[in-house]
Amino acid sequence: MSSGRSFASDNNAGVHPEVLHALATANRGHVVGYGDDPHTRSMELRFREHFGAGAAVFPVFNGTAANVLCLKALTQSHQAVICSEASHIQVDECGAPEAWTGCKLLPVATPDGKLTPRRVEAACHGVGDQHHVQPRVLSIAQSTELGTVYRPNEVAALARFAHARGMVLHMDGARISNAAAALGLSLRQATRDLGVDALSFGGTKNGLLGADAVVLFRKELVPEFKYLRKQGMQLASKMRFLSVQLEALLTRDLWRRNALQANRMAKRLKSLVRRIRGVRIVQKVDANGVFVEIPRRAIAPLRRKTFFYTWDEAASVVRWMCSWDTTEDDVRDFARAVSQALR
Amino acid sequence: MSSGRSFASDNNAGVHPEVLHALATANRGHVVGYGDDPHTRSMELRFREHFGAGAAVFPVFNGTAANVLCLKALTQSHQAVICSEASHIQVDECGAPEAWTGCKLLPVATPDGKLTPRRVEAACHGVGDQHHVQPRVLSIAQSTELGTVYRPNEVAALARFAHARGMVLHMDGARISNAAAALGLSLRQATRDLGVDALSFGGTKNGLLGADAVVLFRKELVPEFKYLRKQGMQLASKMRFLSVQLEALLTRDLWRRNALQANRMAKRLKSLVRRIRGVRIVQKVDANGVFVEIPRRAIAPLRRKTFFYTWDEAASVVRWMCSWDTTEDDVRDFARAVSQALR
Amino acid sequence: MSSGRSFASDNNAGVHPEVLHALATANRGHVVGYGDDPHTRSMELRFREHFGAGAAVFPVFNGTAANVLCLKALTQSHQAVICSEASHIQVDECGAPEAWTGCKLLPVATPDGKLTPRRVEAACHGVGDQHHVQPRVLSIAQSTELGTVYRPNEVAALARFAHARGMVLHMDGARISNAAAALGLSLRQATRDLGVDALSFGGTKNGLLGADAVVLFRKELVPEFKYLRKQGMQLASKMRFLSVQLEALLTRDLWRRNALQANRMAKRLKSLVRRIRGVRIVQKVDANGVFVEIPRRAIAPLRRKTFFYTWDEAASVVRWMCSWDTTEDDVRDFARAVSQALR
Amino acid sequence: MSSGRSFASDNNAGVHPEVLHALATANRGHVVGYGDDPHTRSMELRFREHFGAGAAVFPVFNGTAANVLCLKALTQSHQAVICSEASHIQVDECGAPEAWTGCKLLPVATPDGKLTPRRVEAACHGVGDQHHVQPRVLSIAQSTELGTVYRPNEVAALARFAHARGMVLHMDGARISNAAAALGLSLRQATRDLGVDALSFGGTKNGLLGADAVVLFRKELVPEFKYLRKQGMQLASKMRFLSVQLEALLTRDLWRRNALQANRMAKRLKSLVRRIRGVRIVQKVDANGVFVEIPRRAIAPLRRKTFFYTWDEAASVVRWMCSWDTTEDDVRDFARAVSQALR
Repeated sequence: MSSGRSFASDNNAGVHPEVLHALATANRGHVVGYGDDPHTRSMELRFREHFGAGAAVFPVFNGTAANVLCLKALTQSHQAVICSEASHIQVDECGAPEAWTGCKLLPVATPDGKLTPRRVEAACHGVGDQHHVQPRVLSIAQSTELGTVYRPNEVAALARFAHARGMVLHMDGARISNAAAALGLSLRQATRDLGVDALSFGGTKNGLLGADAVVLFRKELVPEFKYLRKQGMQLASKMRFLSVQLEALLTRDLWRRNALQANRMAKRLKSLVRRIRGVRIVQKVDANGVFVEIPRRAIAPLRRKTFFYTWDEAASVVRWMCSWDTTEDDVRDFARAVSQALR
Repeated sequence: MSSGRSFASDNNAGVHPEVLHALATANRGHVVGYGDDPHTRSMELRFREHFGAGAAVFPVFNGTAANVLCLKALTQSHQAVICSEASHIQVDECGAPEAWTGCKLLPVATPDGKLTPRRVEAACHGVGDQHHVQPRVLSIAQSTELGTVYRPNEVAALARFAHARGMVLHMDGARISNAAAALGLSLRQATRDLGVDALSFGGTKNGLLGADAVVLFRKELVPEFKYLRKQGMQLASKMRFLSVQLEALLTRDLWRRNALQANRMAKRLKSLVRRIRGVRIVQKVDANGVFVEIPRRAIAPLRRKTFFYTWDEAASVVRWMCSWDTTEDDVRDFARAVSQALR
Repeated sequence: MSSGRSFASDNNAGVHPEVLHALATANRGHVVGYGDDPHTRSMELRFREHFGAGAAVFPVFNGTAANVLCLKALTQSHQAVICSEASHIQVDECGAPEAWTGCKLLPVATPDGKLTPRRVEAACHGVGDQHHVQPRVLSIAQSTELGTVYRPNEVAALARFAHARGMVLHMDGARISNAAAALGLSLRQATRDLGVDALSFGGTKNGLLGADAVVLFRKELVPEFKYLRKQGMQLASKMRFLSVQLEALLTRDLWRRNALQANRMAKRLKSLVRRIRGVRIVQKVDANGVFVEIPRRAIAPLRRKTFFYTWDEAASVVRWMCSWDTTEDDVRDFARAVSQALR
Repeated sequence: MSSGRSFASDNNAGVHPEVLHALATANRGHVVGYGDDPHTRSMELRFREHFGAGAAVFPVFNGTAANVLCLKALTQSHQAVICSEASHIQVDECGAPEAWTGCKLLPVATPDGKLTPRRVEAACHGVGDQHHVQPRVLSIAQSTELGTVYRPNEVAALARFAHARGMVLHMDGARISNAAAALGLSLRQATRDLGVDALSFGGTKNGLLGADAVVLFRKELVPEFKYLRKQGMQLASKMRFLSVQLEALLTRDLWRRNALQANRMAKRLKSLVRRIRGVRIVQKVDANGVFVEIPRRAIAPLRRKTFFYTWDEAASVVRWMCSWDTTEDDVRDFARAVSQALR
């Protein structure tokens, strides 16, 4: 598109100006490495403001690491992680969870990307049987990989289900900002208050240059985690440059401003394309992704104009993601291009 | 110090202006994620200019990852990595090499931080014996953790030693720029041309915000490496922001300019402090580090003025590192502070 | 049952007298440990007689180890193993394959326990995509965990499918003797000649005290395997006592005699119980297992008489296994007990 | 030698008749697999008689597994195991401890094979520093790989040292029977009562066909251990045949009878060869091993008569091990052969 912005992924977008400014500002003189610096302390304070006292934050380089290190902290190698068959940890991490934790992932079929106690129950078998991996973690993505958002009571029900069985709840929050914004909740209300034990807090997809974080809500996980991060090759020597990004995101609610813009644009895109003959919206547009079925013949021509991903080849379903920088004009132009391609 | 710059570590320094400028310039519109973007292609081209055709570069987030992923690519879990007992991979990675590769590290005593064929030979035992780990990698740091620099013929001799035994040579080049600059060699001359098989190319310590790279010189290692990087949690979604940093470093020889400045300041510092009574230079100052023995009582007062690390508590040896941004004034001020502390 | 023999599992049976005799005979004087002994050399010779020159055999302690070490030899951690969702490696190894290889298992739905090229094809996606684990091994059990036996052309077709894609074929032969005996094939004809690359050769379930083996048919896998076995905690110091068991099994075709007896008894049991009202045979009885649906209310009373496992709680399917020592009387008595329980 | 017995290793010996008899006796009818059988329950009872209530025993196939699974139960991957540089886990397990636990081993120089608090102290550095592996386990062998035996107070001092630092004490008891017999202690007095947390209980080297065990003295380690054993490929399906071996060893103090015989023969051998000119005993003969320096030229001729291992090539030190079945005649004949070879 003329704007240089696509609907391929929220990680195709660049860096929000406030974040870039924070980076430039932090680039003064020397500070001690590996996190023992004032920027990091200030960022940690900010996280505790948002998530409450006792929440421990550990910046990491990307979302894969946040997920894998959360799972590592929560498991032993003979345990299992129950997740959606569409989940990023199951499909898109090149086996990093298994390789790093030794655990088996137990994928569950989820038409809308959401685990439910009922869907999970069948995977919780063989408990106490030495031949079987032992269910330990429920891992959910919020918002999900299919653009849907768990309602607060749905997350709380999964947390209760897990805790009642001695299990724990991990949230892959690569897009937690989009979910919390969509639900009108604070970050804490959308995570910790619902019973989440460990959160992969996403920053990169929401306007950062490259920074995500592990946020732990269970005290007993905290003392060892710094070693897991270092051993997991995720301890930044120039930590200040991760910290100031994360701090910027939590300053003046940039996390929410960015997320709301992306969410709004997705809703707008949905409302424009749903009227086009041949387009079928296949998932609820709860956050910043629009999943649509379009005629197979239309995909290539449309993609030639602007890149996006096919989600399900067989079903001819494509994914259009909006970002913090997507504009009304981008949406209008793209909807028009869709319309033309489907004629 | 009044300048806000210390002699603690080259990773306490900030980002070189040319690098920050490159980051800002790259922040335009959307580009495809995970490395399929023009910035990354341009960076790869630049690496091939410097290292020759067939050199394959893979950006990663930090030096730990560069080291561990090099070792992962070069080994199977029953093999061993021979390294200096002072090496970063042995001492400072929280066991990441073992945890990620399964291999045993065989540390070798090295008064000056350098492996030699003779020192290595004793560790190469049990070859063919199923009870023993099998020596597979010689891993050397250039410049070393002790501030010394291997001469080209020393590296070449280790490469020959390794290759003659079916082993390979890994170079931890967290400070390869400092070494190449000190030797007056090109990056290729200092690595590939000497027989290095896999290189951890350091950027973060030499003026980048946060980017290092694995550079592979053996074709057979290349096809699988992208999976190792992803599984190793080191694939950046917004790859352009790693790529442009690395490209900036290879543009107009910024790598050499930064390294020379740091090296020169270290030499300058050495020449100033060596005359101070009570200071003993304990390692050759080949690159950007100065290792000195000073009276134990002087350490705390001096550190109160500007932070640095004690290298060897028992021997009362401290480490002073110079960076790309260290100035003549910094050195002069610090030498004066040393002088005062030792009075 | 009065005989002291049940239909629970072929591993509930004891040791065949010829095997016990071989153990006692080998218990003379000292021999060098770890396999450098005449008993082991003699056993290796016997394996080459059965499997052909170039087949390399490595005794291990149990079937889990044979499977996991085969997979370890065939994979790197970013690769995937495609198997039946009912397979032992997926369901019954407490995650040992993942923990030891780092690989992801991709389970495929198989009503009769058999992979087919068509069923496997869908799991072979994402090839070349760094986000995805890379399909590397097809792993099949022969006979299957459901008591069915692949026809020779079915195995050959899977081998061709695998090899055409740069993949390999692993056979979990915990019950390979039962399968080969059922097919009227030699061990070689049932494995190597069909394109199997690595075989878990089962002994324990077929009359041994405790010995299985990895048999490798690809030369390039052999040199490193001894290290994998040792590191995999599977190198017996008193190796002779594994070797003579395996040798006994290959002597005067004890493997076939034992297997045929078990298979015959299963067929006999099937023919007796199929006539009982309320019993439904749910899988073909190709080898030594009989899978039947019986009324749920009958299970507990019947089990009180003699122990067996429920295979599928929901479907009320139970598994009855015959062993090398199962007798006609055992079968008749058990069929009578089934009949009574279902009245 | 004419007897067919050598002094190469206690694992070159065969199976004690009482053990073989127990195996034959247990080979009656069917029993449930994987440990849920009367033989195993009886063996567990016997272990609790010897080690006290609350001691949990888990049979495994060999000593490597006992060691590695103990360490796995005691550690997380960022922790370290401090051991003697001569220890089996450091030298002779082909890196299995690292590969299976992810931990780093920190070998300590020990002239007599024994750790001491003082020798260990230097390895306990970097505590709390995220760059360093965290000391967690002291692992000692009793008797040691050098044939020496820790005095009870020496073990107790190491236990106190460990526990005072939140660390634990593992004992590699591949030859615990030899040590306890030498000290005149019960098995419990030689282990649990001295503060050992987890014991690798050796059976194979002391007259069994092939069975060792993990014995855990800390309650919190027990519930998860069965999964670690299964995932560690060490769960025997025909468990009864491991259990009856271990039970036989604890019956009528066979463990002590076997150990005393081996120990006595070692002392006898020492007293005969020490008088031979050219022989120098280099370690205390506390248990069943004799370590001697002999002229290099004598080694090959002597080995031609009966096989044994060179322990230290450079120092011309060889190792002669006595077994449960070593006789006075064997010792006399061998001493004579030594005498002749040194003439």
